[in-house]
Amino acid sequence: MSFFDKHVFICCNQRAPGEACCNNHGSSELLGYMKDQIKARGLAGDGKIRVNKAGCLGRCDDGPVMVVYPQETWYTFIDKEDIDEIIERHMVGGEVVERLKI
Amino acid sequence: MSFFDKHVFICCNQRAPGEACCNNHGSSELLGYMKDQIKARGLAGDGKIRVNKAGCLGRCDDGPVMVVYPQETWYTFIDKEDIDEIIERHMVGGEVVERLKI
Repeated sequence: MSFFDKHVFICCNQRAPGEACCNNHGSSELLGYMKDQIKARGLAGDGKIRVNKAGCLGRCDDGPVMVVYPQETWYTFIDKEDIDEIIERHMVGGEVVERLKI
Repeated sequence: MSFFDKHVFICCNQRAPGEACCNNHGSSELLGYMKDQIKARGLAGDGKIRVNKAGCLGRCDDGPVMVVYPQETWYTFIDKEDIDEIIERHMVGGEVVERLKI
């Protein structure tokens, strides 16, 4: 049995100025937004969904990126609308959001 | 196919003084040690093993903790010897280290 049904890791790595990194695209802010939404919708907690900050996930060219385990689904995202769609369709509905999948 | 064969997340959360957290037990230092060992042994890179820093994984009472995905294996650890055993037996050998599993 999974400790978390869906365990989300969002890259918030910040590199030196001029270097590509997820945090240049606001990933920390969107991490906060996703955490807030998951809590507000009652989806957080033991055995359910957890959203975590992570260091560089090694897919900088596709950034900002997140990975959802244990499903092993990787997403790119650019704004709150993308996060909303991932929550609604993947976290709640259990389907992969193909247009954001990498 | 997995992007990483084994994706390790180590909680390095630091709470206020007096509060329990993984980083009070040297998790950041052990994260660095594990990353170095994985690289030195040629286990890092695309499709292989990646070790990442993570925020609070929500299992503070068992800390310090790590989780290995997509296998969904959770470990506690206290020193470099524990990290060495996890690398040798789980990362290389593919077996679960039962004595450290949580």
